[in-house]
Amino acid sequence: MELLKQRIRTEGKVLPGNIIKVDGFLNHRVDCAFLGQIADAFAEIFDISKVDVILTAEASGIALAAICGLKWGKPMIFAKKAKSDNIEGGLYKSDIMSYTYGKKVTLILAKQWLPPRTHVLIIDDFMARGEAVRGLCELVGESGAYLEGIGIAVEKGFQGGGDRLRETGLNYHALAVIDSVEEGNIVFRED
Amino acid sequence: MELLKQRIRTEGKVLPGNIIKVDGFLNHRVDCAFLGQIADAFAEIFDISKVDVILTAEASGIALAAICGLKWGKPMIFAKKAKSDNIEGGLYKSDIMSYTYGKKVTLILAKQWLPPRTHVLIIDDFMARGEAVRGLCELVGESGAYLEGIGIAVEKGFQGGGDRLRETGLNYHALAVIDSVEEGNIVFRED
Repeated sequence: MELLKQRIRTEGKVLPGNIIKVDGFLNHRVDCAFLGQIADAFAEIFDISKVDVILTAEASGIALAAICGLKWGKPMIFAKKAKSDNIEGGLYKSDIMSYTYGKKVTLILAKQWLPPRTHVLIIDDFMARGEAVRGLCELVGESGAYLEGIGIAVEKGFQGGGDRLRETGLNYHALAVIDSVEEGNIVFRED
Repeated sequence: MELLKQRIRTEGKVLPGNIIKVDGFLNHRVDCAFLGQIADAFAEIFDISKVDVILTAEASGIALAAICGLKWGKPMIFAKKAKSDNIEGGLYKSDIMSYTYGKKVTLILAKQWLPPRTHVLIIDDFMARGEAVRGLCELVGESGAYLEGIGIAVEKGFQGGGDRLRETGLNYHALAVIDSVEEGNIVFRED
């Protein structure tokens, strides 16, 4: 998605450790109209008519997934992040490593909202090592739902999460893949 | 908002301790089309033309605020919940008590995304004691932005947060106010 790459180039900030911040339009201040355009771009890639529900993880994925849901007329579920000792019954759960928080967190999802044979599209705003998406896939697997696809707005390609998903043959697409950061400049993978 | 009250009546669950769960359409599984109708109801109450940005708190407020932003053509900012020892520079912060987590959390907001004299509408999906909204108001006050109003979808009126806001004379509105729970039945305040 060319417009997304442009905005990352002009508004993204590279911090030490190759952390790429796009918090001016994607995940702190949210440009909701632009997220609507991202939803349109996903709808050109995925067959939305096959999707029953959108699945994401809290917190920042919620804005994009909700906007996709409104534009496509679909409900959305967000997996919550809980400490392992906070788990109740009736939940699917998956342990993931959160690099943001530097610790293990557990994604939880109430079983009643993801019945077997539901057709699920996973949507998230950002992917680096892909732990959140791995956890979401695990929740889908536990539930007996069908995974129709995985759509990510911005992938940090050099951290490997996206390539691992491509190797599995899953219906995975990212709208902008950052391949490297060279002298502070963000280099995108060619489409 | 009559339709919201109807859905709370038919789909809401009352748990011990008068905890009211509406996680089938509002804050776990999210009925995005219905949140669009909630956004329309807010737009009848507040003068959206005066609003520069929508402000909410992570996590569950994000879905409603993002959908409001898309429908109204406005950006949205969500305050993040951080541990007190995780604070960096360049942030507004406000300590609130989280009853969900049973501990103090700090709402943080990057200063650059809320400049002075910005016209802010606070939106959240649920309010009980009103700690999150109190924290958001504090962030607005710190920033020198103007608070145009506070819109809440579901207020638990018997926990006092809403009435405290009404007493202050702030432009506060809730679309459904639950006044009591009697023998498992949810009783709404008359409009």
